[in-house]
Amino acid sequence: MIIVLKKTVTPQELDHICQKVRELGLTPQVSRGVERTVIGVIGDEEKLQVQPLEVFPGVEQVLAILKPYKLASRDYRAENTEFEMAHGVKVGGKKIVVMAGPCSVENYDMLFDLAKIVKKAGATFLRGGAFKPRTSPYSFQGLGEEGLKYLRQAADETGLLVCTEVMDTRQVELVAKYADMLQIGARNMQNFDLLKECGASKKPVLLKRGLSATVKDLLMSAEYLLSRGNFKVVLGERGIRTFETSTRNTLDLNAIPVIKKETHLPVLVDPSHGTGYRDFVTPMAMAGVAAGCDGLMIEVHQCPEEAKSDGEQSLLPGQFEELMKKARAVAHAVGRDI
Amino acid sequence: MIIVLKKTVTPQELDHICQKVRELGLTPQVSRGVERTVIGVIGDEEKLQVQPLEVFPGVEQVLAILKPYKLASRDYRAENTEFEMAHGVKVGGKKIVVMAGPCSVENYDMLFDLAKIVKKAGATFLRGGAFKPRTSPYSFQGLGEEGLKYLRQAADETGLLVCTEVMDTRQVELVAKYADMLQIGARNMQNFDLLKECGASKKPVLLKRGLSATVKDLLMSAEYLLSRGNFKVVLGERGIRTFETSTRNTLDLNAIPVIKKETHLPVLVDPSHGTGYRDFVTPMAMAGVAAGCDGLMIEVHQCPEEAKSDGEQSLLPGQFEELMKKARAVAHAVGRDI
Amino acid sequence: MIIVLKKTVTPQELDHICQKVRELGLTPQVSRGVERTVIGVIGDEEKLQVQPLEVFPGVEQVLAILKPYKLASRDYRAENTEFEMAHGVKVGGKKIVVMAGPCSVENYDMLFDLAKIVKKAGATFLRGGAFKPRTSPYSFQGLGEEGLKYLRQAADETGLLVCTEVMDTRQVELVAKYADMLQIGARNMQNFDLLKECGASKKPVLLKRGLSATVKDLLMSAEYLLSRGNFKVVLGERGIRTFETSTRNTLDLNAIPVIKKETHLPVLVDPSHGTGYRDFVTPMAMAGVAAGCDGLMIEVHQCPEEAKSDGEQSLLPGQFEELMKKARAVAHAVGRDI
Amino acid sequence: MIIVLKKTVTPQELDHICQKVRELGLTPQVSRGVERTVIGVIGDEEKLQVQPLEVFPGVEQVLAILKPYKLASRDYRAENTEFEMAHGVKVGGKKIVVMAGPCSVENYDMLFDLAKIVKKAGATFLRGGAFKPRTSPYSFQGLGEEGLKYLRQAADETGLLVCTEVMDTRQVELVAKYADMLQIGARNMQNFDLLKECGASKKPVLLKRGLSATVKDLLMSAEYLLSRGNFKVVLGERGIRTFETSTRNTLDLNAIPVIKKETHLPVLVDPSHGTGYRDFVTPMAMAGVAAGCDGLMIEVHQCPEEAKSDGEQSLLPGQFEELMKKARAVAHAVGRDI
Repeated sequence: MIIVLKKTVTPQELDHICQKVRELGLTPQVSRGVERTVIGVIGDEEKLQVQPLEVFPGVEQVLAILKPYKLASRDYRAENTEFEMAHGVKVGGKKIVVMAGPCSVENYDMLFDLAKIVKKAGATFLRGGAFKPRTSPYSFQGLGEEGLKYLRQAADETGLLVCTEVMDTRQVELVAKYADMLQIGARNMQNFDLLKECGASKKPVLLKRGLSATVKDLLMSAEYLLSRGNFKVVLGERGIRTFETSTRNTLDLNAIPVIKKETHLPVLVDPSHGTGYRDFVTPMAMAGVAAGCDGLMIEVHQCPEEAKSDGEQSLLPGQFEELMKKARAVAHAVGRDI
Repeated sequence: MIIVLKKTVTPQELDHICQKVRELGLTPQVSRGVERTVIGVIGDEEKLQVQPLEVFPGVEQVLAILKPYKLASRDYRAENTEFEMAHGVKVGGKKIVVMAGPCSVENYDMLFDLAKIVKKAGATFLRGGAFKPRTSPYSFQGLGEEGLKYLRQAADETGLLVCTEVMDTRQVELVAKYADMLQIGARNMQNFDLLKECGASKKPVLLKRGLSATVKDLLMSAEYLLSRGNFKVVLGERGIRTFETSTRNTLDLNAIPVIKKETHLPVLVDPSHGTGYRDFVTPMAMAGVAAGCDGLMIEVHQCPEEAKSDGEQSLLPGQFEELMKKARAVAHAVGRDI
Repeated sequence: MIIVLKKTVTPQELDHICQKVRELGLTPQVSRGVERTVIGVIGDEEKLQVQPLEVFPGVEQVLAILKPYKLASRDYRAENTEFEMAHGVKVGGKKIVVMAGPCSVENYDMLFDLAKIVKKAGATFLRGGAFKPRTSPYSFQGLGEEGLKYLRQAADETGLLVCTEVMDTRQVELVAKYADMLQIGARNMQNFDLLKECGASKKPVLLKRGLSATVKDLLMSAEYLLSRGNFKVVLGERGIRTFETSTRNTLDLNAIPVIKKETHLPVLVDPSHGTGYRDFVTPMAMAGVAAGCDGLMIEVHQCPEEAKSDGEQSLLPGQFEELMKKARAVAHAVGRDI
Repeated sequence: MIIVLKKTVTPQELDHICQKVRELGLTPQVSRGVERTVIGVIGDEEKLQVQPLEVFPGVEQVLAILKPYKLASRDYRAENTEFEMAHGVKVGGKKIVVMAGPCSVENYDMLFDLAKIVKKAGATFLRGGAFKPRTSPYSFQGLGEEGLKYLRQAADETGLLVCTEVMDTRQVELVAKYADMLQIGARNMQNFDLLKECGASKKPVLLKRGLSATVKDLLMSAEYLLSRGNFKVVLGERGIRTFETSTRNTLDLNAIPVIKKETHLPVLVDPSHGTGYRDFVTPMAMAGVAAGCDGLMIEVHQCPEEAKSDGEQSLLPGQFEELMKKARAVAHAVGRDI
């Protein structure tokens, strides 16, 4: 950590700061420049992260040298994280995993029908919400446990895995009973109690990036999971909030190479939520694959006109098959499979 | 609701949409313009909000005429919401309420000492975190119930009320036992299960705006509380996330007059989190009062050098007294008291 | 255009608005709903765009039905715009055009050397700045006309076309003398006098999206060019400003399918400026191709250590050759060529 | 400047960087920490700003210690800049200056009438656009020189000063002939040629912050003016672009205390453009005064229904008088006058 001092710093202030640094078991190294004096701090930078050095008299700014995440960083683990799930599905490997299904689970027949469709087209996971985070209290809030049962049954009958959202600490055990992978939604990315519970559950987790979260914030939230011993974590890019309104969110594909550089964890792209409009889902899924993602999450619905949520962004079954064909071509072009 | 049709819409598509509108018990009114045909829908717009009309063939866009919130709107209640709490403290009235205290509760003596200081300077609420939402899993996470007890005791001995954050549905009952007002933090503004529990608890709630939440989103979250019968709700502006980095967040004071226009609920400004730097807290508190806020939330610490969190933005006791004097002068200038 | 009236609108206010609408030669169509009365306006919506209807007493909001751009829209021209330049280079066709070269023109030898390299790797345009928009007045401001001459000569000797930035209305004639395509940079996207001059010049123009410009804003600026009779316009996505700091800007690839839907104009992606870091340029170029772009603009430099600007984001010659190979594979996968 | 090296840096890479630093006439000071080695650079940091050190092999990141602006900084000039104009008007002093008038100059009678109104209410400047930056090429583009003449005449007859926008380098001389202060609009904040011309003109300049400009960017643009010897510069906050849509822009009042801390230049607030809606102008003007601004710019129009631009945000004469009364009360409360 580098402490930059004000031009007006006094010798007493300088001594006071150096003493504090020594009290923390670290070594201050004072360097006098032409315009500013700076203190380099030698030792475990972590000790300083809890200490608000900015507030000491005479300090102008404090510059961090290390990233605040540890277990999530490439420094901790250089090679990509890859883990295996049921049916031999590998997450984080050469083959890009595809999670597909309706936004909300609405009834069994529709779900089972969709499961067969997406399985046939090449998906490995069935997605669908049983607990739904809805902006309005008057909107459909999901089928709850009944929805989880439908997901499990439809997945089992078709040879798919289940990924579904858990919204509340009290639901973790229940959702973990039915799902193969727990999804933490964008709005809960910094619900730290939920992160702790999902970390403790040891189930694979899909952690979606919050609408106003930087990649660094996302990795800090992943650190909550990893620090509880759960390394089966997939990061999900699903759009950030910007001033642009022609898409519902701004799917930030830059995050793919950034994440690949910073962390060993696999990353998935959700162009359905990321763009919010059916017409943009397929091109952005293809772009995600070209950028290097390890997974795709796609909303599909037989009859978007009747969907209880997010009908605007759901693909029709035929459109999903088309997406899979196009994404596969791009995957092959970049040395991957899907 | 207005349904704008594509230039290429067919008579069959038009009929199909009109039929759907009628099925919902509404009346479609077709109007043919020079460039586009539009359908005005007469009846309860709510019925259409669950229906994804955008996905019907031939539809270009759907324009909403009504706001999606009801109980929170000025249409529902024209006069300002004002409610009374213990010690005769009125929230939402002529007198601006001030909540002050440390970021985190660290120990009793410090807290009691601060309570006396802020009470003397004119605060009516003691603020302080017992459960802390921290970006890093390695940071201080709060004292939990012990912190709640300290808050209650320090407030009782000084004649203050307690406002403190609840982060998890499982803590609502516990926090409600000690606090006079429950705070839902910015990161949990769309933790819908937490909103439901806080709504059900009937305790006054301070609902803080999320970092990427529009005012409309904030009012939709308030609607979760109101629709469960809890009308003792205060909205809190504490900064949104923008590209500007000279402040930690961008405190959006525009939200004050916008909120005052749209809703009857009182609104509070938190310039400590909103700006993130001690130097900017007092001018922005004064600006908040001039803009018409009903409350201020200010972080104060005797020794920011030792603070376990947010030391950079905490005022020293003397600075807080100064803030109160300056804010009082502005309050009087705008016909309010503090 | 739809005029939504306030709940409290009086018959006099309603009459006043209808009269105004009629004065403009349009027909008001009043429709009374349960909660609101709305006025549909039949006729040429353009006439209303100059009239601030929001300010009339009794008006709650005004909803536009038509897009504000005309010549740029797919309604005006359904098929893609494709135009041919010297050396038979087609812009907007099946083959993706690649513009490559240094950020700034620094000297002739370096430029000529780079021109040979990028030509060999498959580029069709030589890019490079002779007039440089620099944030700091103390930074290198470009070689001016000398730089333009170098560009022309290096391009002619290698069979490339020249695309270079024009920053000021007074430079348009000069730059047009040397360049094949005029670039209007992001910071000048709403320099309306410059747009008018470039529109009048009839030279092909690359119009880059501003850092805080929506796609709609970009198309409105394009409309300035088109309305002066210049239809040889390429739009350029080069990143928008968001809260994310791990990339210099947030390259918004969603803009590609949005632009393709809204307008007939070709669109180019600049991942060098869009991301700001060399490591992210190639994956984002590939993603841009997969998303459907018609062109790429890439910064290349033999010795980024010595570059007078933007060294961090410049590819080395070998990296550029690698990018071309990978982008070509993706282009073939999506039915394009490069 | 601090150069942080990668964990994997080799002794050769370290030597190479140190040598480069020495070649620039600076002294490298190597400090080996537990996790990273850093190089502190002693000497004139400016020399390094032109050098892209990030691209050297072995470099992880480069941390700047000094601000990139010089003449604009408080380090260069500690006391506030205050300058006097005609009629004894002081800018940057105890008295807050008010610039008021229509968005566009439309005709002389209207303008003269407004000039009398705003003068009587306490304004010192007449504002109004003769050259208008309009998003659409089909909107009213201003009266040009005729508008400038009207402004000069109306101001002279009422004892006001004129502040009006210059959009193009070719207009600087003309506008300077009629105006007392040149306004550089938000869209031109990084039109560097225009900055150079306005800097050279020596006329007082109002430099408005761009929609996506940080305060640092704004100060860098001011540096263009100052470095050409023009120190009569007023900075203008008029809203930034964020995701919030309930206001046209997000007026960022935090910028006031930030600017006051960083620079000696006076700062003005424009709540008309900053919020975009008449209802929000007065509270935000009051908030701006409470936050410490040195000036206000307010749009006023006798008949917003007929305004050729920005009618929605223009105050009626009576509303402007009311604003002045309220702003005056706040000004007195904070020890200022208006």
